[in-house]
Amino acid sequence: MKATTEHLTFKVPTRMDFINITPEIERLVKKSGIQEGLCLVNAMHITASVFINDDESGLHQDYKDWLEELAPHDPERYRHNRTGEDNGDAHHKRQIMGREVVVAVTKGKLDFGPWEQIFYGEFDGRRPKRVLVKVIGE
Amino acid sequence: MKATTEHLTFKVPTRMDFINITPEIERLVKKSGIQEGLCLVNAMHITASVFINDDESGLHQDYKDWLEELAPHDPERYRHNRTGEDNGDAHHKRQIMGREVVVAVTKGKLDFGPWEQIFYGEFDGRRPKRVLVKVIGE
Amino acid sequence: MKATTEHLTFKVPTRMDFINITPEIERLVKKSGIQEGLCLVNAMHITASVFINDDESGLHQDYKDWLEELAPHDPERYRHNRTGEDNGDAHHKRQIMGREVVVAVTKGKLDFGPWEQIFYGEFDGRRPKRVLVKVIGE
Repeated sequence: MKATTEHLTFKVPTRMDFINITPEIERLVKKSGIQEGLCLVNAMHITASVFINDDESGLHQDYKDWLEELAPHDPERYRHNRTGEDNGDAHHKRQIMGREVVVAVTKGKLDFGPWEQIFYGEFDGRRPKRVLVKVIGE
Repeated sequence: MKATTEHLTFKVPTRMDFINITPEIERLVKKSGIQEGLCLVNAMHITASVFINDDESGLHQDYKDWLEELAPHDPERYRHNRTGEDNGDAHHKRQIMGREVVVAVTKGKLDFGPWEQIFYGEFDGRRPKRVLVKVIGE
Repeated sequence: MKATTEHLTFKVPTRMDFINITPEIERLVKKSGIQEGLCLVNAMHITASVFINDDESGLHQDYKDWLEELAPHDPERYRHNRTGEDNGDAHHKRQIMGREVVVAVTKGKLDFGPWEQIFYGEFDGRRPKRVLVKVIGE
C-alpha cells in the first residue's frame, strides 16, 4: 500500500466563497502514482468545508443566500462569539456543507460522475487556511 | 491491497424518493472477496445523495416534508434555474443529506449497527443516474 | 495492509449532548500501530452523529439551539413517531451533523488542523450506544 499526504493553502479575500480545487486534486492524485484507492480531501479548519457539487455561479450564489438564511452572520446571535470571535455563523454553515469528501481513485484518476467538481468552501476567510489531501492505495 | 469498482444505476420515477440499496452493496462487498477494509458508496450525480438511516416509511415522508421546507421546489427561487434547469432545490437537498457514506468492512461484511441501512436519495429523478461502490482492503 | 476494528460505548444521560472523543480515538490509532492510512469513526446508531468541530461550550449550546430550531423535538410533528417512537427529531438532527468522519493518519497520528476535535453527537440519549473506529493502512 502507498500513501501520500499533501496540503493546499487558500486565502479567500471575502468572508464566504467557493473555490474549484478539482485541478489541484487531480494533479496530486497523478503525482501520487496511485492507480486504485481512495482520496480524502478535508478542510483542516472548522469554519471551512470541502464539498462536491456543480461549478455554476448562480448555484453558488443560491448556496450563499441559503446558508445566510439558515445561519445568519449576526454576531449577537451566537454564544460562541462571547469568546471574542465573530464567526459563530461559519461553524454552522460548515456543518451544512460538510468537512470532507472521499473520492474513489480508479485507473489513476478521480472516479467522477459527469458534473462532479470539488470545492473549498470558505465561511470565515481573509486569512490563509489549509486543506489536507491524503491518497492511499496501490 | 485489493480494490474493486462497481456501478449501480437507478431510475426513480418521481422527482424525490429514497431506495434501500443495502442488499446490493452487501452483494458487491461479498463479490469483492475483501475481508477487512473500507467501502465507499457515493452518488455520481450532484442532485442525489447516499446516506445511512432507518428503513421506515413514515420517517422517509418526514424527510421529504422537511427537505421541502428547507429547500422548496420553487423554480423561481433559484438563480441556478436561469441556466434552463428546474432542479436548483435538488442541489440544496443533496447538501443536507450528503453525497457519500464510508462503511467499515469487517470479516467480509458491512460492519453495521442494528438499524443502519444504506439509501440512495433522489432529488431530481425520472432519468437513469449512477452510484459508485469502491471497496479497498485485503 | 493492516486493519483494526474497535468499538466505543457511550451512555449520555440527557437527550442531546456532545462528547469530545478525540483522546480515545488517538489512543486507538496509536494502539493500531498504523503509521500511514485512514481512520473512519462513525456512529452505529441512526439517531447519533460523529463530527469534527471546536471544543467550545458556547458553540455547543449554539448547535443545540439551532438543531432544535431546524428539527424541533415535538413528538406530534413526525410521522415516524406513530411507530411508537418519540425520536423523529433525532433522525433529522443527525442528518445535519453527519454520521461519520474520515481522518488521515500520518506518521502514526491523526493528521489534524489546529482546532479539529472529534465529537460524538447524541440526539436520543439515556441508553448505551456505540461508535465504530476502523483504521486501515500500514
